[in-house]
Amino acid sequence: MKLHRSIADRVEPVGETKPLSYSYWLGTFVLRGSVLPRILPDVVGFGLLAAAMVFISQFVAKHYEVSLAMPARPFEVAGTVLGLLLVLRLNAGYDRWWEARKLWGGIVNESRNLAIAGLAYGTEDQQWRAQFIKWVAAFPHVTRRSLRGERCVPELARLLTSQQIDWLKSNEHMPDAVSRRIASLLHDARRNGMNGFAFQEAERQRSLLIDYLGGCERILKTPLARSGAIQVRQFIFLLLAFLPLSLMQDFEGTLFAAFWGASASHRVWLVPLFIMILAYMLLALDRIGMELQNPFDTRRVDFLPLDGICTTIEKNLLELLHDDNLHDYSAPMV
Amino acid sequence: MKLHRSIADRVEPVGETKPLSYSYWLGTFVLRGSVLPRILPDVVGFGLLAAAMVFISQFVAKHYEVSLAMPARPFEVAGTVLGLLLVLRLNAGYDRWWEARKLWGGIVNESRNLAIAGLAYGTEDQQWRAQFIKWVAAFPHVTRRSLRGERCVPELARLLTSQQIDWLKSNEHMPDAVSRRIASLLHDARRNGMNGFAFQEAERQRSLLIDYLGGCERILKTPLARSGAIQVRQFIFLLLAFLPLSLMQDFEGTLFAAFWGASASHRVWLVPLFIMILAYMLLALDRIGMELQNPFDTRRVDFLPLDGICTTIEKNLLELLHDDNLHDYSAPMV
Amino acid sequence: MKLHRSIADRVEPVGETKPLSYSYWLGTFVLRGSVLPRILPDVVGFGLLAAAMVFISQFVAKHYEVSLAMPARPFEVAGTVLGLLLVLRLNAGYDRWWEARKLWGGIVNESRNLAIAGLAYGTEDQQWRAQFIKWVAAFPHVTRRSLRGERCVPELARLLTSQQIDWLKSNEHMPDAVSRRIASLLHDARRNGMNGFAFQEAERQRSLLIDYLGGCERILKTPLARSGAIQVRQFIFLLLAFLPLSLMQDFEGTLFAAFWGASASHRVWLVPLFIMILAYMLLALDRIGMELQNPFDTRRVDFLPLDGICTTIEKNLLELLHDDNLHDYSAPMV
Amino acid sequence: MKLHRSIADRVEPVGETKPLSYSYWLGTFVLRGSVLPRILPDVVGFGLLAAAMVFISQFVAKHYEVSLAMPARPFEVAGTVLGLLLVLRLNAGYDRWWEARKLWGGIVNESRNLAIAGLAYGTEDQQWRAQFIKWVAAFPHVTRRSLRGERCVPELARLLTSQQIDWLKSNEHMPDAVSRRIASLLHDARRNGMNGFAFQEAERQRSLLIDYLGGCERILKTPLARSGAIQVRQFIFLLLAFLPLSLMQDFEGTLFAAFWGASASHRVWLVPLFIMILAYMLLALDRIGMELQNPFDTRRVDFLPLDGICTTIEKNLLELLHDDNLHDYSAPMV
Amino acid sequence: MKLHRSIADRVEPVGETKPLSYSYWLGTFVLRGSVLPRILPDVVGFGLLAAAMVFISQFVAKHYEVSLAMPARPFEVAGTVLGLLLVLRLNAGYDRWWEARKLWGGIVNESRNLAIAGLAYGTEDQQWRAQFIKWVAAFPHVTRRSLRGERCVPELARLLTSQQIDWLKSNEHMPDAVSRRIASLLHDARRNGMNGFAFQEAERQRSLLIDYLGGCERILKTPLARSGAIQVRQFIFLLLAFLPLSLMQDFEGTLFAAFWGASASHRVWLVPLFIMILAYMLLALDRIGMELQNPFDTRRVDFLPLDGICTTIEKNLLELLHDDNLHDYSAPMV
Repeated sequence: MKLHRSIADRVEPVGETKPLSYSYWLGTFVLRGSVLPRILPDVVGFGLLAAAMVFISQFVAKHYEVSLAMPARPFEVAGTVLGLLLVLRLNAGYDRWWEARKLWGGIVNESRNLAIAGLAYGTEDQQWRAQFIKWVAAFPHVTRRSLRGERCVPELARLLTSQQIDWLKSNEHMPDAVSRRIASLLHDARRNGMNGFAFQEAERQRSLLIDYLGGCERILKTPLARSGAIQVRQFIFLLLAFLPLSLMQDFEGTLFAAFWGASASHRVWLVPLFIMILAYMLLALDRIGMELQNPFDTRRVDFLPLDGICTTIEKNLLELLHDDNLHDYSAPMV
Repeated sequence: MKLHRSIADRVEPVGETKPLSYSYWLGTFVLRGSVLPRILPDVVGFGLLAAAMVFISQFVAKHYEVSLAMPARPFEVAGTVLGLLLVLRLNAGYDRWWEARKLWGGIVNESRNLAIAGLAYGTEDQQWRAQFIKWVAAFPHVTRRSLRGERCVPELARLLTSQQIDWLKSNEHMPDAVSRRIASLLHDARRNGMNGFAFQEAERQRSLLIDYLGGCERILKTPLARSGAIQVRQFIFLLLAFLPLSLMQDFEGTLFAAFWGASASHRVWLVPLFIMILAYMLLALDRIGMELQNPFDTRRVDFLPLDGICTTIEKNLLELLHDDNLHDYSAPMV
Repeated sequence: MKLHRSIADRVEPVGETKPLSYSYWLGTFVLRGSVLPRILPDVVGFGLLAAAMVFISQFVAKHYEVSLAMPARPFEVAGTVLGLLLVLRLNAGYDRWWEARKLWGGIVNESRNLAIAGLAYGTEDQQWRAQFIKWVAAFPHVTRRSLRGERCVPELARLLTSQQIDWLKSNEHMPDAVSRRIASLLHDARRNGMNGFAFQEAERQRSLLIDYLGGCERILKTPLARSGAIQVRQFIFLLLAFLPLSLMQDFEGTLFAAFWGASASHRVWLVPLFIMILAYMLLALDRIGMELQNPFDTRRVDFLPLDGICTTIEKNLLELLHDDNLHDYSAPMV
Repeated sequence: MKLHRSIADRVEPVGETKPLSYSYWLGTFVLRGSVLPRILPDVVGFGLLAAAMVFISQFVAKHYEVSLAMPARPFEVAGTVLGLLLVLRLNAGYDRWWEARKLWGGIVNESRNLAIAGLAYGTEDQQWRAQFIKWVAAFPHVTRRSLRGERCVPELARLLTSQQIDWLKSNEHMPDAVSRRIASLLHDARRNGMNGFAFQEAERQRSLLIDYLGGCERILKTPLARSGAIQVRQFIFLLLAFLPLSLMQDFEGTLFAAFWGASASHRVWLVPLFIMILAYMLLALDRIGMELQNPFDTRRVDFLPLDGICTTIEKNLLELLHDDNLHDYSAPMV
Repeated sequence: MKLHRSIADRVEPVGETKPLSYSYWLGTFVLRGSVLPRILPDVVGFGLLAAAMVFISQFVAKHYEVSLAMPARPFEVAGTVLGLLLVLRLNAGYDRWWEARKLWGGIVNESRNLAIAGLAYGTEDQQWRAQFIKWVAAFPHVTRRSLRGERCVPELARLLTSQQIDWLKSNEHMPDAVSRRIASLLHDARRNGMNGFAFQEAERQRSLLIDYLGGCERILKTPLARSGAIQVRQFIFLLLAFLPLSLMQDFEGTLFAAFWGASASHRVWLVPLFIMILAYMLLALDRIGMELQNPFDTRRVDFLPLDGICTTIEKNLLELLHDDNLHDYSAPMV
């Protein structure tokens, strides 16, 4: 029991992301996780642009008696279509993010399955068993660091000897090397009498790990179709730049229908505020859609908690190895 | 036949969720399963906020002769886009919920397949057969409790000896331990002459159980992308807080187009009622989308009937074991 | 050739559902397959409710000089969002329905594959071959009846002896028992020299049958998330109950813009007609979404033609068995 | 090289469908592939109906001084929801069409894989190799004809002897019989020393061919849910039949706001033209959704180019067989 | 280490597509990747058409006193439905594009897995190992060129002898021939003592490469359903050709509501500008949807970076081969 505790202690737990509160009011004005700070400059930029449009329009109307006001109708249809585009892109971004999470779920599953298969059907040799579990536990750590472009994997010190770590770092593509090493350990086991059928299942699980790694690299290296993203941003610009000319009229329209006269010329200056609220909505959707594209980078607002996942895998695997030493699974218990 | 009955009696049946009535009127005013009680305080909060907005607006208009009324057009587009966002989030939540149900469907299928394979191709040893079926039947119970964060699994008393239960509880990750135990039983069978090909299929089914368990843990531990959820709530706030300033005008507009004059000033107080109805719709969509995220928690409004599923698996498996003792499957019947 | 014909005759063909005519006009006013008769009472109910709302509103306006008329704008946005919700729910219902059809397609495929594998790689024993084909052909019939909650399977009389049928009925979960029996026949074949690799493929196909059966049971026992369904119905109620107060105004508006005066007070009574048309659309979408949830029940409007599917499987399998007796597949034909 | 050419000559190439031009203007007024000719009568029908509605309405207004004009608002929401329904149904139809294409892609892949496996791992016997390739190449042809309800397969004359073709035609379900024959050839190879593991992969690929065939039959025999299709058509009727009463008013409204007076009574006759344009859009969406349901029938507007696909498979397979005779694959080349 | 470097040097790296900047303003006015240059002529064409419509309308109104002005309402609904159609088609195009990327991801994964399996479980013969890795590395290059309709594959000079390249070019379908060659190498290994279970996994991975190749050919040869694409373009034409007649009125409406008079007749000429902005949006969506259909062609705006992917596979595989010579994987490291 002491050994067990000592293993659990060596693996520090990493906090899971807390889910948002179910109650509406408690979960609305949260700043952590909001993209507001990231898009604030762009939103202010659109506010200034709108103010400039209003000023120019007022100036031209006064001095040249030319109205730049525009009808609102075309903006309504364009706004709906643009909203649809942004929402569907957000959805596509979310699907990528969820696919990345699924791929990591697959890494969790196959690591566990490999460990269970190795302990149940592998060789009886204690050293082989420990080595096998540790190399399998090393795979997620190496993969995570590789996806983040890091070559330094401090977690390995808990699992491998410094000699092994040096060898691993001499390989350019480190996850491939770990997988190659696991294949080699399976080959040893097969030669030392591991059941062929169980060997095949384990080999299949090892190749699935490569598949999941490849899936993550695909998501990392292939941004969403560029042309669509550029187009959406140009549509946002066209909409937000010309909308003030139409809104101006709406505010003036409400002006003449009511019976206040003095405050009329001031109300038109509410237009930039309106534009900023709208820009906030559109740019937030655009930004979240962009940020969801790279779920592995910790600088992104919705990055996946890969540190926690890898540590959990390691803990579960070491526990299986530990229990394996204590229990005798092969004798039927009554 | 008596033994059969006694098995069926030991497993108490758990009621399935009744589907909603097909007829519209009978299925509308159901309270059980509605989120109304859960969001009522938030809805009332928005009603009060709207009343305050109307009061402030009236006060400012009277004393400072400044109109805070806003044009309605921008709210229409924003409302449509927000509706789209909420509906798509509801859809994403429903997809998660359905994926969780599919994963449990997979646990049902592979439990059955493992049991059929164990009885058809395993060893002839009666004790091994009983043990195998019982450990397979234990897996869903342990998984369900584990997903709910419980370590106490009273259902196991029907299947395992107290010694076995104690051993199981000494493992931190209990479903892993059950799967490890099943692997060990398969290993025994293989060594005692189980057909290698059948063994491989059974091993594949065992590893699928781990995959499904991993899928459930993934859904449990990964809430929907936080940033999107926060943004949606902020959009709801912006819409519902400023909409009264626009609606006020609509109600006044209808006022002057009609020929009643006296009741005019009263009608504007219908605005908070309107806002509350709208808030009910928006918050209900938001809340259901949130609640669908964790389909395993019995406190959520649409939790999956896992108790019933696990009991059904247990019943079917014990029936297969029971019939196995009565019939001789290996002889061709004429 | 006579035997062939006699087999084909014993299996009565069941008519497939005719697809709708491609031409628009020929396929519009079809009553069979329409949900109109099923929702007519609910539609009439909403018509009466609308008439009551109009009467109350007219009465209050006349006697108390209080207008209950409402602005139309909020209803437009709410109507669009509600329409979106209903259409997406219809889509989700259709996806379930199509998934059920796919599962049955899988049962068709694996039954065929099992039969081809059994005849090509199984034992040479004529009795084993006939038994194997017949038990595989029995699986779809038993599954279909089980999904409909029936325990009486008259089709089995064409395939099994009455002794076998009695045994089958002594099992509570009949499809499990058939699958168990097929596994046992495969076990016999393997022991009598069936190729191990071919055995493994056949075993995999047998376990796929259980997977598809489990998928169907999942669809049958898990209605769409309750809370969403209730919410949609409450939204429909809110919309249809308050819309008359807004439509009233529209009809009066058109009244004053035109130059007829006398018929004005009568036109408002067109409102209930309008509400009924709208109710027809909304309730039809709601109802079809509900009915698609259980594609196995013949009382539902779009039930799957399972009788035809099962009979076709049986016919194809018996044909394979019949040809097997006539042809010598193993000798290369020139 | 001469033999190679002679094989290629015997298989006549079938033209692929040309993709639409990328440039907008060049790809708009194409008649081939448009559904316009197919729905023209229905569109004209709605035009006549609209003219009748306008005439009746004018007549009633003149003689009885009763306005049948309707407000436009409800039509906007209904039109949006109907558009959504039609677009989503089009999407569902497209998904079916793409699924059918995927299934045929699977037939291409597994035919190739079977041929490569047969040549690489099968027996050395030249006759067996030729027979195996030819029966595999026959499968797609037989499947295509079977999906179109044809029993005459002239392409088989290039592959099989007339004796073999006669035997094939004596089977009711011809693709099943071809698959049974391939299984029998694999059985021969296995008995003559084919590697068991390679045999298993080939057997798996053979059973995948049956799966893809079954998938195609599923799409062919299961039209989209009937009730939804009927409902959509009734909604189209309701919208297009009553819309003239609302449009009439719009055209008159523009009339009185402008300063032309004489042409006023003529402009209302533009309404049927409008209705026809709208009917063209709605009926085209409905029709394409219907036509996409059966992608195998050459009378449908978007049928899949199965003739070309089957001929390509045949050509590739015969090339593999031909090269097999020329090259010695088993010796390592330097 | 020198050899390693020399391998890495021989494979020139190909730049990945840079993802768009996260910040809005920096990523909006990018020309590379925008479809603007490709659709500019079509957009200008619609501008001219709109100008002609306005001119004709003005001319007719002046000389014949007949107003061609149209109400705006029908255009709103039609515009929303058309926007929905275009956005969903864009989505379908994006799904194809992503599916193509996934298929190439699969080629990456299975190439790696084949290489790892070949080195871990294949024969000890150094020449076999080098040949195997090089033929696997040749597959992606040959596939990429084949998808682009090119028969010249200069990259092969780095991997194969000129004799081998000549032989390869004598085959019409080159990827099939490479796959056939890999199968033959596996056959050699199996005969020289390669583990049967490992052989089967490798054979499965080889057949997956053919599946992915087939998937790419399916996407290449099957454009999106033609009829839908034609219809969408006709709808765009109808909308953009008749919209000027409605917009004209909107601009005039704003004219009379304001107090400028002189500039009135000039403002109507803003209509073509409006139409061009709208045409830009619609045609951009149409064009991107079309261009996404062929992700393999480097002339398309969003083509996949296949050159980089293939070079990366080659580099990783050669590194595995190189390391294999240096390290002794089979001995357990301490």
